[in-house]
Amino acid sequence: MNKRKIINDPVYGFISLPTDLIYDLLEHPWLQRLGRIRQLGLTYLVYPGAQHSRLSHALGAMHLMQLALETLSSKGIVITPAEAEASAIAVLLHDVGHGPFSHTLEHSIVTGAGHEAITAAMMQKLNQEFNGHLDLAIEIFSGNHKKKFLHQLVSSQLDMDRMDYLNRDSFFTGVAEGVIGYDRIIKMLFVHNNELVVEEKGMYSVEKFLISRRFMYWQVYMHKTVLAAEEMLKLILTRARSLQKKHQSISPALNHFLSHQTSMDDLKKETILHQFAKLDDGDVLQALKIWSDEQDSVMAFLSRRLLMRKLFKIEISERPFPESKISDLVNRLSEYFRISPQEAANLVIHDSTSNHAYNPSHENIHILYRSGEVQDVSAASELFTHDALKKPTVRHYLCYPKEVSSR
Amino acid sequence: MNKRKIINDPVYGFISLPTDLIYDLLEHPWLQRLGRIRQLGLTYLVYPGAQHSRLSHALGAMHLMQLALETLSSKGIVITPAEAEASAIAVLLHDVGHGPFSHTLEHSIVTGAGHEAITAAMMQKLNQEFNGHLDLAIEIFSGNHKKKFLHQLVSSQLDMDRMDYLNRDSFFTGVAEGVIGYDRIIKMLFVHNNELVVEEKGMYSVEKFLISRRFMYWQVYMHKTVLAAEEMLKLILTRARSLQKKHQSISPALNHFLSHQTSMDDLKKETILHQFAKLDDGDVLQALKIWSDEQDSVMAFLSRRLLMRKLFKIEISERPFPESKISDLVNRLSEYFRISPQEAANLVIHDSTSNHAYNPSHENIHILYRSGEVQDVSAASELFTHDALKKPTVRHYLCYPKEVSSR
Amino acid sequence: MNKRKIINDPVYGFISLPTDLIYDLLEHPWLQRLGRIRQLGLTYLVYPGAQHSRLSHALGAMHLMQLALETLSSKGIVITPAEAEASAIAVLLHDVGHGPFSHTLEHSIVTGAGHEAITAAMMQKLNQEFNGHLDLAIEIFSGNHKKKFLHQLVSSQLDMDRMDYLNRDSFFTGVAEGVIGYDRIIKMLFVHNNELVVEEKGMYSVEKFLISRRFMYWQVYMHKTVLAAEEMLKLILTRARSLQKKHQSISPALNHFLSHQTSMDDLKKETILHQFAKLDDGDVLQALKIWSDEQDSVMAFLSRRLLMRKLFKIEISERPFPESKISDLVNRLSEYFRISPQEAANLVIHDSTSNHAYNPSHENIHILYRSGEVQDVSAASELFTHDALKKPTVRHYLCYPKEVSSR
Amino acid sequence: MNKRKIINDPVYGFISLPTDLIYDLLEHPWLQRLGRIRQLGLTYLVYPGAQHSRLSHALGAMHLMQLALETLSSKGIVITPAEAEASAIAVLLHDVGHGPFSHTLEHSIVTGAGHEAITAAMMQKLNQEFNGHLDLAIEIFSGNHKKKFLHQLVSSQLDMDRMDYLNRDSFFTGVAEGVIGYDRIIKMLFVHNNELVVEEKGMYSVEKFLISRRFMYWQVYMHKTVLAAEEMLKLILTRARSLQKKHQSISPALNHFLSHQTSMDDLKKETILHQFAKLDDGDVLQALKIWSDEQDSVMAFLSRRLLMRKLFKIEISERPFPESKISDLVNRLSEYFRISPQEAANLVIHDSTSNHAYNPSHENIHILYRSGEVQDVSAASELFTHDALKKPTVRHYLCYPKEVSSR
Repeated sequence: MNKRKIINDPVYGFISLPTDLIYDLLEHPWLQRLGRIRQLGLTYLVYPGAQHSRLSHALGAMHLMQLALETLSSKGIVITPAEAEASAIAVLLHDVGHGPFSHTLEHSIVTGAGHEAITAAMMQKLNQEFNGHLDLAIEIFSGNHKKKFLHQLVSSQLDMDRMDYLNRDSFFTGVAEGVIGYDRIIKMLFVHNNELVVEEKGMYSVEKFLISRRFMYWQVYMHKTVLAAEEMLKLILTRARSLQKKHQSISPALNHFLSHQTSMDDLKKETILHQFAKLDDGDVLQALKIWSDEQDSVMAFLSRRLLMRKLFKIEISERPFPESKISDLVNRLSEYFRISPQEAANLVIHDSTSNHAYNPSHENIHILYRSGEVQDVSAASELFTHDALKKPTVRHYLCYPKEVSSR
Repeated sequence: MNKRKIINDPVYGFISLPTDLIYDLLEHPWLQRLGRIRQLGLTYLVYPGAQHSRLSHALGAMHLMQLALETLSSKGIVITPAEAEASAIAVLLHDVGHGPFSHTLEHSIVTGAGHEAITAAMMQKLNQEFNGHLDLAIEIFSGNHKKKFLHQLVSSQLDMDRMDYLNRDSFFTGVAEGVIGYDRIIKMLFVHNNELVVEEKGMYSVEKFLISRRFMYWQVYMHKTVLAAEEMLKLILTRARSLQKKHQSISPALNHFLSHQTSMDDLKKETILHQFAKLDDGDVLQALKIWSDEQDSVMAFLSRRLLMRKLFKIEISERPFPESKISDLVNRLSEYFRISPQEAANLVIHDSTSNHAYNPSHENIHILYRSGEVQDVSAASELFTHDALKKPTVRHYLCYPKEVSSR
Repeated sequence: MNKRKIINDPVYGFISLPTDLIYDLLEHPWLQRLGRIRQLGLTYLVYPGAQHSRLSHALGAMHLMQLALETLSSKGIVITPAEAEASAIAVLLHDVGHGPFSHTLEHSIVTGAGHEAITAAMMQKLNQEFNGHLDLAIEIFSGNHKKKFLHQLVSSQLDMDRMDYLNRDSFFTGVAEGVIGYDRIIKMLFVHNNELVVEEKGMYSVEKFLISRRFMYWQVYMHKTVLAAEEMLKLILTRARSLQKKHQSISPALNHFLSHQTSMDDLKKETILHQFAKLDDGDVLQALKIWSDEQDSVMAFLSRRLLMRKLFKIEISERPFPESKISDLVNRLSEYFRISPQEAANLVIHDSTSNHAYNPSHENIHILYRSGEVQDVSAASELFTHDALKKPTVRHYLCYPKEVSSR
Repeated sequence: MNKRKIINDPVYGFISLPTDLIYDLLEHPWLQRLGRIRQLGLTYLVYPGAQHSRLSHALGAMHLMQLALETLSSKGIVITPAEAEASAIAVLLHDVGHGPFSHTLEHSIVTGAGHEAITAAMMQKLNQEFNGHLDLAIEIFSGNHKKKFLHQLVSSQLDMDRMDYLNRDSFFTGVAEGVIGYDRIIKMLFVHNNELVVEEKGMYSVEKFLISRRFMYWQVYMHKTVLAAEEMLKLILTRARSLQKKHQSISPALNHFLSHQTSMDDLKKETILHQFAKLDDGDVLQALKIWSDEQDSVMAFLSRRLLMRKLFKIEISERPFPESKISDLVNRLSEYFRISPQEAANLVIHDSTSNHAYNPSHENIHILYRSGEVQDVSAASELFTHDALKKPTVRHYLCYPKEVSSR
């Protein structure tokens, strides 16, 4: 009774830590580290409130999991206490392998492994430390548990992860349009043939959820100013790696990853995981300050710019940008900064991003009718009967120093 | 018209940047730095939502200033556009001289100057950069402007600073009890004999504001777990300084301040201000990681503990702790850790904190009656007619490693 | 200065009454009457919080008008103080001619005139009382003012009326999904060629607004239980009129309208308007109690049922119900209640309702691109490029006493 | 599974109806009637949002009861399912005997019995209808159950009734200062020696709760304009009764109570309860319209005034008003309206109201310390160590027609 069991959360009021194991996991340095990693990376440059951490998101998603399990239990779905705890743990740990600014820097820091692989490796290691008590959680997380709906609560197009991040990102950015009726959706959850379904009368709420997600995608996650800042950060890290020199003043952990290629196999080494577990936003932001005084002028230029919020210009288009426009930009950059065209080309980013309001090809959302019939939401909802929201929306962007405005 | 003029804020919805000068100030690296300093330091260890930055607070306070000036104008108080801009700037910059964790580390990093002195120095420097356009703002900030009520909006027991931080800290910690009726209080502001007053019918709101502040003081600002963490951090910085060695791996800026005593005179040097302006939370948190592997075992012990959230035990009492209890703790620590009693003594913190719900001796809050009479709120309100809320509440605390529990 | 100028509103915090004329209008008994008429009629039977009045909606819409005018002014659109006051008045009065439960009973009480005609007549009469000071407001309201955008703020698919009612109905029902980003949309309003437009970056917010409106339509406004209750109420009023007898115990005003046919011409008579202005929800709800003890057994049956919340069964379908099903129901009702088939037929309601997410054929919403180009939102938004949201959605319903369940 | 079990509530999101019995009670016409009675009577004349019903309050209090019982259960306090249901019912029905505007009209309509007596009688009658299934609920309600803490959750200075009404009234009036940290207080509840207690760390929240209640008392419940309106209403009902004539056009139920004295014994008669159960706000508001055209000029004057919001002037004072001032007012009224001094005296109301922030003499709030010690909150809290908040605050008021302003 002397373990602190209730945590204040601005989004949901209070979050309960249901068991001692969960309390102990939360205290673990690998979880505490998530308290020093922003959920939305550099987004705070545009939305000053968006400083919330991955830790608060993990707690929030765990809270929603508890609500969802209560709803299902109250409707007669059997969920044992062990399964309930394991489901909560699965979602609490689902992002434990994220590094700093991982949306942007995923392969710039740890070259050979994405956050999913790192998460899996860290879970295994934690399971050892906790004497196998995470077995069931890992089973659920990885989709190997017989109650498939538990996995779907952790990972699907209507999982507790998404519900919390939409709520939370909307809350902290102050973008009211991202608000979702998470409590209504959760109250409408049910299980049918071992699959998670939403009862018919929750369908409009699901539609709204998908529209909110689409809204947040373009208004927040892909905000053009944030995108510009992130592309600059990516350039900086790439350049840091390419300079292939000792980065004495930056943190030892970041130095390690920038001086080495990391492979999937490396994740099996405890030392690598421990190095990784030292990384947080601070390692990168502190390095930017060091690099602002770096001899390499491109590094210094980019780092100083980013810290001073003098961001690249960014253009968005529904169509790819013509090659001629890009080469023109490169030429002007080369002239303006007196650098080689090759170097100048590194400063012009052209890329694209795409988003599905709803992807009907996997991890689907199913609607259960009173009649007992089950339909995919893309068939059930009028909003989705046409292609617009099922096909990914693609946007091309072109990003370069402001000095050379495109004509 | 191409400067971004509206900023999303989760507390107030939208914040407008009323003029180009304010926009440019906000973009200045010294203001942007506040985006990397948490308003509540280590409070996020207890309230995971409390990651909000000093920048968002500065913006919020500026927003409330605009609301207050609108209210006063609508009641016939003359405020020129220049005064309105200057008042907004004064409050926007009022905390610019805060360093990382400055509530805790105020004199541990910059030994000879508090944040007010640094703020004053930075404002002067900014004023040079902006060609004297901050003259009026500085006049208001420092209380030298003839319209005294403008200064009172920036700094008094009912200033926009306090209103915003109560709102904001309450919002981000999720502690509903800190909510204040800021809009009602602002609507009730008036000016009488050149002094800021609150109209009679706003008195209950002022009472609530003072009670909320008291609530937040004990529930959040002096939360015992946070206090323990902060005391550990202070110990660490003090020890770092005393080790008197080159801290090669920590940031150059932090290294500078830990290797030197800084005097008030130093603030006149541009280089010192620029060093200071490089400091943010990251410098300290990154140093903690370095120090976790430090040779000095006390440094390593404390740093590792803090990062792993294994915090000191803390006891609170209305009375000072007896000397015998403290010496007993020191002895047991000395034995337990096999360190000298002098070293052990450094690990036992006994100190006190005090808080006024309302301090009737300066920067008073005045209530204006319909009759034209003005009274101090401590005389006007029944809540304050007795001493309890006018006298400071004092709490003593004793903080030490958990290993040696006190008997 | 002694007129109360600020009103608490749970949705927006505070609403200011900007001028004395508006204050006096608000105090007028015809406006005060709206405080006794529920905005959502019988919806409180399903959503217990939905007791909010038409008066609070009128105030809310007026508040949004003020915000919109402030935004437009700050962008350089010229709006004179007289136009601002008149626009506020136009929206304050836009629903003054609504009767009790007017969504349902529009032509059941006042047979020959809808609420728009009554509103127009009441505005004219008020204008006389206020010595022509409403001339400009009426001009704007009726679309005859040269600044067309002012009328569009009062009445269009993106008017302040809709914005407030979505906000407000969502707030009071507790249906979070109806929340709209009204402040963002308002901040994005502009005027182009004398027409109201939304700046490009507000487009996603407009999409969300339209989706929210669609959501509220099906989830709240057409909630099937509410629909059943309303249809019962309509039956009752129709029967009351048909009984053609003196309704001595019901209110004189309601009695008048139930005993007479009212024509458009009647609205010119001051006495008729005064009779109408006496009607509020109470007249109808009190009559239900009287009619519960009525000799006519159908009246008594229906009234008692409605008061006791024993509502009709309602079925919803995308297709019209087959005649055979309806006649079967009528027969069984006739048997069950031992009434004639004609009477039984009156107890079976088959009707339909339809809703446009966005109607591209009138009062359009226009998006202004940075390029200066203007597009209809249905062309600009991917959501609306297909027919689904432009075509009305039609739902048929069948409503009848529970006693005879349909097979 | 076909009984609707979840209800939207704007204050708490969703309210669950935990059992079929509770569902059936809620559908009962006596509960449904509470949906037509405003929780705050005429307060909507000042706070337009305050239209919320006693039904929504009853549901809200029941919801908080469920949260409180969950908390207590999770801390090991044994509460059987039957006790949980009965506690929920007790609080759901705690106000069932309130009549329209009962805060004001308690003894003006039903002369010989207060709402507590009527509630008790109605509960007994409901218990008959429900075949004794309310036995346990009535036992808890009336304080006869052995688990005293269950009764304290229903009725004490920290009961679910008060928590909900502060939350709810604050929400609907839009008075942010009334917000309480109900969830924190509930999480801190515990049982000690069969009595409800609050754990030590909830003490500041209890203080805030008491201060909020005091705030709401003076800012909302005793708002002077509302008080004036209510006093007018009371005058009108008293006069209606005294005219001792048949009130043919008003509702039969109201007519009954105004034509008869009702005694406590009458409550045993089923017909009286049924008459009472027909009364709601509509009966009174409709009568006001009838009485506006009443021959008796005082009745007509007062009724018209109230409907038109031309309210009496009201003065508030800490001291009783001097007799001379009152007699002077009476004389001037007599002259002005050409009525007898006796009649004029009826139009001048002098009365007083008092409020305890905390009444230490009964239904106390107890704080449980970690040490196991229990203290009354008035001893535990510094706020209450002095008399100010324990002694009732008394305010005298004088209320009369505006025509004769007092000198």
